[in-house]
Amino acid sequence: MTESSVATVKPVSIDEATGRVAEIYADIMQTKQIDFVPNFWRVLATNPQLLESVWGNLKKWMHPEQVGRESRLDASTREMIALAVSASNGCSYCVNSHTVALKNLGVDDEQLGEVMAIAGLFNMTNSLADGYQVVPDVRPDV
Amino acid sequence: MTESSVATVKPVSIDEATGRVAEIYADIMQTKQIDFVPNFWRVLATNPQLLESVWGNLKKWMHPEQVGRESRLDASTREMIALAVSASNGCSYCVNSHTVALKNLGVDDEQLGEVMAIAGLFNMTNSLADGYQVVPDVRPDV
Amino acid sequence: MTESSVATVKPVSIDEATGRVAEIYADIMQTKQIDFVPNFWRVLATNPQLLESVWGNLKKWMHPEQVGRESRLDASTREMIALAVSASNGCSYCVNSHTVALKNLGVDDEQLGEVMAIAGLFNMTNSLADGYQVVPDVRPDV
Amino acid sequence: MTESSVATVKPVSIDEATGRVAEIYADIMQTKQIDFVPNFWRVLATNPQLLESVWGNLKKWMHPEQVGRESRLDASTREMIALAVSASNGCSYCVNSHTVALKNLGVDDEQLGEVMAIAGLFNMTNSLADGYQVVPDVRPDV
Amino acid sequence: MTESSVATVKPVSIDEATGRVAEIYADIMQTKQIDFVPNFWRVLATNPQLLESVWGNLKKWMHPEQVGRESRLDASTREMIALAVSASNGCSYCVNSHTVALKNLGVDDEQLGEVMAIAGLFNMTNSLADGYQVVPDVRPDV
Amino acid sequence: MTESSVATVKPVSIDEATGRVAEIYADIMQTKQIDFVPNFWRVLATNPQLLESVWGNLKKWMHPEQVGRESRLDASTREMIALAVSASNGCSYCVNSHTVALKNLGVDDEQLGEVMAIAGLFNMTNSLADGYQVVPDVRPDV
Repeated sequence: MTESSVATVKPVSIDEATGRVAEIYADIMQTKQIDFVPNFWRVLATNPQLLESVWGNLKKWMHPEQVGRESRLDASTREMIALAVSASNGCSYCVNSHTVALKNLGVDDEQLGEVMAIAGLFNMTNSLADGYQVVPDVRPDV
Repeated sequence: MTESSVATVKPVSIDEATGRVAEIYADIMQTKQIDFVPNFWRVLATNPQLLESVWGNLKKWMHPEQVGRESRLDASTREMIALAVSASNGCSYCVNSHTVALKNLGVDDEQLGEVMAIAGLFNMTNSLADGYQVVPDVRPDV
Repeated sequence: MTESSVATVKPVSIDEATGRVAEIYADIMQTKQIDFVPNFWRVLATNPQLLESVWGNLKKWMHPEQVGRESRLDASTREMIALAVSASNGCSYCVNSHTVALKNLGVDDEQLGEVMAIAGLFNMTNSLADGYQVVPDVRPDV
Repeated sequence: MTESSVATVKPVSIDEATGRVAEIYADIMQTKQIDFVPNFWRVLATNPQLLESVWGNLKKWMHPEQVGRESRLDASTREMIALAVSASNGCSYCVNSHTVALKNLGVDDEQLGEVMAIAGLFNMTNSLADGYQVVPDVRPDV
Repeated sequence: MTESSVATVKPVSIDEATGRVAEIYADIMQTKQIDFVPNFWRVLATNPQLLESVWGNLKKWMHPEQVGRESRLDASTREMIALAVSASNGCSYCVNSHTVALKNLGVDDEQLGEVMAIAGLFNMTNSLADGYQVVPDVRPDV
Repeated sequence: MTESSVATVKPVSIDEATGRVAEIYADIMQTKQIDFVPNFWRVLATNPQLLESVWGNLKKWMHPEQVGRESRLDASTREMIALAVSASNGCSYCVNSHTVALKNLGVDDEQLGEVMAIAGLFNMTNSLADGYQVVPDVRPDV
């Protein structure tokens, strides 16, 4: 068993992919401009509807130009949010993948440090606000 | 008891604040350009060293220009990260406060929706990657 | 409906309790030296086996002297751990209840602030260590 | 040191187990119909009362027929809940162990995908509901 | 401001809904066989693409028969997983809404207690397995 | 690449450290009475201000005697809180490092088991209290 297949299900390789899965694999590689299908998607392909549903969602929000949507956030900001959430949840796969994405976008270690600092800061203040049960004093004007 | 004091400790009012606490209260209001001290800080003031430590941290990363630091992220990006982390942790106080901050920075409901969509998306993919124990395939080039 | 019953199930009042539930209610009040049954236990009583199982667990670890067990931690330390975990999880009921317990044990706002500071600090460092995928360098000698 | 002992404490082997620990080890193997003691239980055995308390809890809720309790949920449903929670918490050991259990119960990759899809979906909607501070509109009739 | 609008954005009422939002509102009410649009969807409607994306996802996995998909899990099991995840994340809106859904499906307090017991149990064991860094011993056969 | 450098950024070695980073490295080794700089700090050093900010925070709360502050908690209690939070968050690096710290303070497996038991217990009760939306009945007297 190769290392890349050590998940709890057997990832679907490109060679094994047929029909809708093969189409989505092609779309992933073209959209992301990469020449392989990351393990995450190969694992989801064990339930093709799950693959379709998650990829549709991610393509829409992270590759908006590919679905004819105009995003109000730039690509770096989107990836920074992704990394901050993944760091807060402690997801190893996701942290690695979004750090790669940020570095590919030209983000350097200093900026990465700022993202981490802010994510870390609010994981701290969140537990403080909840730990003291602080009541909101300012409310958005809705 | 007024509603604003319903935390697990009695918030320190501006009138009660003396010494280092009074100085920090003044700094908070000036830095944030507001004319009241939010409940969060008034609660932390029940342990003045906690107030000092958390405020120093938040001032450094969220108000960099006030400490002579040049941030590589703009103010909206910083607040978006704060909101995404707070939404992931389900912190009521923090969600309210960072949504207010974003609206004050001119972020509208459509952009707010994008931040939420991305935060929600990665809370989903994080649980999928962890739930299948997907192995990282791409690694940042360190 | 009184406020104390606004949970997703109808709490079992003392008057309604019979059999094993009534016995556990009596044990809760005696063990904790209180004259009411907190909402948490009244809600669990909607499934008596759940009440029995959770109460048995909590009594064992938080009231060791009542089950003939000698604890190596003192009561304050046990409650501080409970509060730190509850703050990290943002559980409102639990934060309130363990803060009350700590105050009853004589813990003042300064000490409470230290517990919060440490809980907050490690929620921050946890997200940093995970966010950078730092590899353990020191390992307990097992 | 064998790989199976790389935890923060030294797991108690079957050969080392005596008294109450040995009895529980035997009960675990018989209840689960396996011929080894999983690392989780061998680690908890470093504090025999912790082993006893957690095993009693798990046996009661996950192996109800062994304690003369009639469960209203079938075994697959119970394991699916276990997996969904473990995926949400990102617990590697637990995800592996409950996926094994589900496969042993005959759950295939398609069903596993449905469990993951639903767990992922609600990790997303939870952060959205919290991130917008949505107020409950429907309440259970208690 | 009515209570139902106290979110961080102003929910879109049925009367205000037009175009794609109005269509989705109609679909939500028909699919769920209810005569109002829950606050969650009205809040997401402040970004119509977010509404569309999340509703599409939820309809697919929670109302499979409405999208011509055959689910391998029954409706109660799906809602139990939703509730267990929401309880683990402490999401108030979601806990309320999925408890209502389960009660509408005929699930009583005893069964609800079992779901809670299992969710609670694995939140406990997850922190124990992670807290001791237990190494997986059994792996799914992939 | 040595194992110790497999993070998402390249840790700064002692030999590479200059200026403020070198000073902090020296302070870390002296404060903690160790002869190496743990990976966590070497990773944070990729953004020297992040290193300075987090170390300042940790030194203040975990090594109070070094900053002339008198702590009201003893060193073991502080580390137990750190471990309980880290176990709840499932942070591998942090669990390892705080378990080492506790063992160095003389805490044995039995006591460690108590800390874990209490952390596990409240991760369970937190999800139960949130999962039933239990309303606080006792409130701290503020």
